[in-house]
Amino acid sequence: MAGKYTIGLDYGTNSVRALIVNVETGEEVGTHVFDYPHGEAGIILDTKDPNLARQHPADYIEGAVASVRGALKDAAGKDGFTPEAVAGIGVDTTGSTPLPVDENGEPLASREEFKNEPAAMAWLWKDHTSHEEAAEITMLAKQMRENYLAKCGGTYSSEWFWSKLLHCKRTAPKVFDAAYTWVECADWIPGVLTGTSKPNEVKRCICAAGHKAMANPCWGGYPDGAFLVALDEDLGRIRKTLPSALYSVKDIAGNLTEMWAKKLGVPAGIPIAVGAFDAHLGAVGCGITPGVLTKIVGTSTCDMMVAPMSSDLPDIPGLCGIVPESILPDYFGLEAGQSAFGDIYNWFVNYMQPGGLQKGSHEALTEGAEVLQPGASGLLALDWHNGNRTVLVDPRLSGLVLGMSLHTTPSEIYRALIEATAFGARVIMERFEEYGVKVERVINCGGIAMKNPLVMQILADVFNRTMEIARSTQTCALGSAMCGAVISGAHKSFADATKAMTGIQSKKYVPNSKNVALYQRLFPLYKQLHDAFGTKTYNANLANVMKDLLALRDEVRK
Amino acid sequence: MAGKYTIGLDYGTNSVRALIVNVETGEEVGTHVFDYPHGEAGIILDTKDPNLARQHPADYIEGAVASVRGALKDAAGKDGFTPEAVAGIGVDTTGSTPLPVDENGEPLASREEFKNEPAAMAWLWKDHTSHEEAAEITMLAKQMRENYLAKCGGTYSSEWFWSKLLHCKRTAPKVFDAAYTWVECADWIPGVLTGTSKPNEVKRCICAAGHKAMANPCWGGYPDGAFLVALDEDLGRIRKTLPSALYSVKDIAGNLTEMWAKKLGVPAGIPIAVGAFDAHLGAVGCGITPGVLTKIVGTSTCDMMVAPMSSDLPDIPGLCGIVPESILPDYFGLEAGQSAFGDIYNWFVNYMQPGGLQKGSHEALTEGAEVLQPGASGLLALDWHNGNRTVLVDPRLSGLVLGMSLHTTPSEIYRALIEATAFGARVIMERFEEYGVKVERVINCGGIAMKNPLVMQILADVFNRTMEIARSTQTCALGSAMCGAVISGAHKSFADATKAMTGIQSKKYVPNSKNVALYQRLFPLYKQLHDAFGTKTYNANLANVMKDLLALRDEVRK
Repeated sequence: MAGKYTIGLDYGTNSVRALIVNVETGEEVGTHVFDYPHGEAGIILDTKDPNLARQHPADYIEGAVASVRGALKDAAGKDGFTPEAVAGIGVDTTGSTPLPVDENGEPLASREEFKNEPAAMAWLWKDHTSHEEAAEITMLAKQMRENYLAKCGGTYSSEWFWSKLLHCKRTAPKVFDAAYTWVECADWIPGVLTGTSKPNEVKRCICAAGHKAMANPCWGGYPDGAFLVALDEDLGRIRKTLPSALYSVKDIAGNLTEMWAKKLGVPAGIPIAVGAFDAHLGAVGCGITPGVLTKIVGTSTCDMMVAPMSSDLPDIPGLCGIVPESILPDYFGLEAGQSAFGDIYNWFVNYMQPGGLQKGSHEALTEGAEVLQPGASGLLALDWHNGNRTVLVDPRLSGLVLGMSLHTTPSEIYRALIEATAFGARVIMERFEEYGVKVERVINCGGIAMKNPLVMQILADVFNRTMEIARSTQTCALGSAMCGAVISGAHKSFADATKAMTGIQSKKYVPNSKNVALYQRLFPLYKQLHDAFGTKTYNANLANVMKDLLALRDEVRK
Repeated sequence: MAGKYTIGLDYGTNSVRALIVNVETGEEVGTHVFDYPHGEAGIILDTKDPNLARQHPADYIEGAVASVRGALKDAAGKDGFTPEAVAGIGVDTTGSTPLPVDENGEPLASREEFKNEPAAMAWLWKDHTSHEEAAEITMLAKQMRENYLAKCGGTYSSEWFWSKLLHCKRTAPKVFDAAYTWVECADWIPGVLTGTSKPNEVKRCICAAGHKAMANPCWGGYPDGAFLVALDEDLGRIRKTLPSALYSVKDIAGNLTEMWAKKLGVPAGIPIAVGAFDAHLGAVGCGITPGVLTKIVGTSTCDMMVAPMSSDLPDIPGLCGIVPESILPDYFGLEAGQSAFGDIYNWFVNYMQPGGLQKGSHEALTEGAEVLQPGASGLLALDWHNGNRTVLVDPRLSGLVLGMSLHTTPSEIYRALIEATAFGARVIMERFEEYGVKVERVINCGGIAMKNPLVMQILADVFNRTMEIARSTQTCALGSAMCGAVISGAHKSFADATKAMTGIQSKKYVPNSKNVALYQRLFPLYKQLHDAFGTKTYNANLANVMKDLLALRDEVRK
């Protein structure tokens, strides 16, 4: 019975989850979620700058203990579970979420002098303060290193590693100077648990380095010093602290220390897997294979596919990255995504708080929205409240709603926002297929996939594809637990782990042909707005847009 | 003391007001408002068709009695007033608000068979059901009678007389066949009060006929039969019921009948002026003269200027009309306007009902909006929730808000909506000036001018002009009372009446140079959206719009 369980530790945007999984059956025997105590729902904000989003690393440490202890308690007695049967741990986190550390791997945020300094904290994936630096990096790469850009969709993002470091240098030089190096949260957590968080010991994952820090085996790892120095002299200093070897989730980061074993309440010495991003291990927990588009649908989305490394894969413009083994060993990992999805509905409910006749909860708005036919509102929206990650790779975009009359209701706008996110999702799927990566199935996971039938049905209707739902409601944590299973030897390969530990729900969302036909007419109008506001190549009139929407509205309402 | 007072009867969108005015001083000694009992705030709506807006003529009759009786009661004892001292009555109404009547001038809506038939009621100015017919009329006029279009801005509107009749013929033929003719509300009310409502007796005003029914002395009055028959055979029948003579507000419609004198409680036989549209008499009540842009700023706006009939005035594309004597005798009346203004803020408050942290009343939203600097929200909106009357003359347009982030607040959107209405207003002012009608002063009246300092300040800042406010809070009714004063001989001319009876408040809204500079940067972006969505001639990219807004936002917030 020893070795029958592994733990997945899943560091999300607002909380950390621990999940205990039976490696033979995939049964999830215990789980616990710990909400980060700092900031607003775990995020440190700045009213003066809506682009800023940071996290306090102390929350990660406190969360590891609380979530694992909670999960152990939850699992106690179920399936014959005992803590001694935990054989390994996998870790996933958000990213790119780098934090500045000193020579010992200690976060600068733990120093008294930087206690209230957001720049010394973890720069959360969705921090967009570095948009100018991202544009600068893109421009320099276009001049010096075109090949760097080709692997990350043609544009470097403000959400990524080097943009954030450069912005810190420019705006908080004291913090930057005090940092020996910067470590991705996904690398730092396994380092802490295994006593290998010192910069020269910590194992950095190909997933974060490849997708966010321009590292690629084609050019020997991280970007070269000359390129970084051309951006800023001091980035050359950071470059020297970065290793040449990169690891994937099949690798062991180290073994759980005595101290951490005591804190967590699991056996000392068990292996901890190299970390990876939540979305990537979420795809693993969904059972990703070639031909499957895996979508993690939550506050934002991550859309992932894998392609055999033997295949002749072209560079795909607008993708967040094509990185060997970033998702599964032996496959290229392809990542795309929408920088806001459910967050847009949350904005409408939490910030607009539409009320009165139709009360403003998600439930009430959904009730109003689900009886509406596509096109009946005359509305059309863009899903860019948090910029556009794929395929425009442009954080300097914003939301749009058009088509309002003097009688437009909150439910109509709510539905239009949902439709906008679905149209944005379709643009991503079409981009994969345009470049030869065929989508045979779509498997969804994440909070919205599990809990929001209206959104999933609209996705099915807009895509004209069946939406399947992963069996596990916590695929990221499950994917991490699968890493624990592979590195501890419980499974020989990820293929075996996938077979044993993942599955699909019987509930599927099948396209409704009438709605499909209506969305086929709305999507080109979305694309018109998308291209007119989002690209420099669209040069045409938009005079048809409102008229076409009104004509469709009148037709549908009749 | 006899003849010292006149009454202005002002039929608005939701209610009718009676105002008793001292013709020597302009003092308003008594007033009363009667809310129309039918429908929603006096408007009969159709949930299936947001374009429909009708009124029941019974409300007009009931309202005449209730409002005048109420005003007499209110005036009793003030300024030495007695009902015997009422020397005349002027009437203004909304328009184009035509109603179908029989051979006796009886509204079809009063028949049992049409009791619940919206087509038999008065077709309120803001009814947009006839947009297809309006387009058809425009197209036919382009082929047959280009000169007709030139006088009404180049496009015939769904809000106007012939569109409504044609739509009635097409969609409610029973009503259309039962109608002997159609009468504008502005003509029908004086007809009723003076016992001259029979189609061959009722005096039709140049104001309604000229601005809304394509009548012009240049071609001998109403459009010719051949043109109307080309639209529909039966319009030729209606054409034959229309007179060749048209009248202005300096003319007497008739004298108050004994029966109506008893009902109202004022002397029998006093003269009733020919009616006119509320907005036009509102301009008169503001003290309109050449060089003064008069704005009635309420749920919608009406923007009026006058130009000497001796002047060589060109046709001005996009204006609702250039009609001799439609506002003041001896002057061309020039009318423009926004089909929704305060209605857009009302939509946000009443339909969206944004709540919570910032409660969703106008007062609370204003409080949040007035501390925001121009550009600080990153938002930009279009004021087309009810289409665009001037300068696009296109009801088939709709609202737009762009620039939202995940932190955009209701107050920010509220301010963006206000700014959008101000930008739309500036487009109108610029159109006047482009065609040589210089704007030396801007005098505002209407509910928003009186009660909403934030909106008025934003107008001043967007226009870079001082906004003056009319002294009277009920300029339309005052203008009507001024007509009563002129036709009863209390004043020899409108110039005399204007001098004696109108004035300006000491409170003025002066442009704030800092805000002016910011709006000078936002207005071109508004114009870009305006032209891209509203015209067929704009062919360019919009990729700058969101970026420029974000850049300005960042700059202003710093």
